[in-house]
Amino acid sequence: MRPIGVIRTDFREMKETPIQSSAAKDARGTVEVFAEFADGLSDVEGFSHLILLYVFDRTQGFELRTTPYMDDHPRGVFATRAPRRPNPIGMTVVRLLGRRRNLLDIAELDIIDRTPLLDIKPYVPDFDLRTEATSGWIAHAPGRSDPRRWKDDGRFGE
Amino acid sequence: MRPIGVIRTDFREMKETPIQSSAAKDARGTVEVFAEFADGLSDVEGFSHLILLYVFDRTQGFELRTTPYMDDHPRGVFATRAPRRPNPIGMTVVRLLGRRRNLLDIAELDIIDRTPLLDIKPYVPDFDLRTEATSGWIAHAPGRSDPRRWKDDGRFGE
Repeated sequence: MRPIGVIRTDFREMKETPIQSSAAKDARGTVEVFAEFADGLSDVEGFSHLILLYVFDRTQGFELRTTPYMDDHPRGVFATRAPRRPNPIGMTVVRLLGRRRNLLDIAELDIIDRTPLLDIKPYVPDFDLRTEATSGWIAHAPGRSDPRRWKDDGRFGE
Repeated sequence: MRPIGVIRTDFREMKETPIQSSAAKDARGTVEVFAEFADGLSDVEGFSHLILLYVFDRTQGFELRTTPYMDDHPRGVFATRAPRRPNPIGMTVVRLLGRRRNLLDIAELDIIDRTPLLDIKPYVPDFDLRTEATSGWIAHAPGRSDPRRWKDDGRFGE
């Protein structure tokens, strides 16, 4: 595993960075794919949304139980999207605004500046839409309806 | 990066393995999370669907342009979900049937037997549903409406 690019946003510190793209509707940024991989971007323009896989490189180690930003109780890490995981891979669905050669202009970007990119996949409704899915603890989390809690609260520092 | 578990299914060879979970509605299998990580599974039971991240360990190398199983034309690898990618990470949304300690019973599993697991994330409609998303080349791919093409065609051997 090695970076194929870098994600550039206006979020320079973990604190205040949106915790999900759905909390970052107005956040714009750029995905730079390194020139050697640029040919792999052909045909991405047809997709309105992309899945980004990236490294949570600003945290260290992991906890098997963690209190999510939106909740007040510890949860198993695999029932959360928290960054401190055994393999620190982040996944976010973002909106593609356009491509300029090896640069992608992106909206709904909840990612901290200079994050190493691992992969880009198209978001495909046939594969990825699960309208019947239920939300587990998130359905009743105290932070779910409070936008002030849709951001990193700074507990892991920078 | 290291495996946190292993995915067990009835698909022993690449050929004929479904290429997406939406083409594997009847396929059942098990995700075994290694005992040292089992505590991280608390609270997953509340979610109907999970996102699995895993290693495409039966393929080698990558191509920046590849002809998808469902299509007849080469596409940029980042506009496909093809396995031979610069970082060979697979991502699939699956349906959770239940948990037995460190074992997850899974449906809609499009993954080959003994695949190394990297991460489990909850599928969260607030974060992951994009009902407005468009499908790029897949919208018009000749294989989209032909279930015979929703499987590995064996071109990469085993």
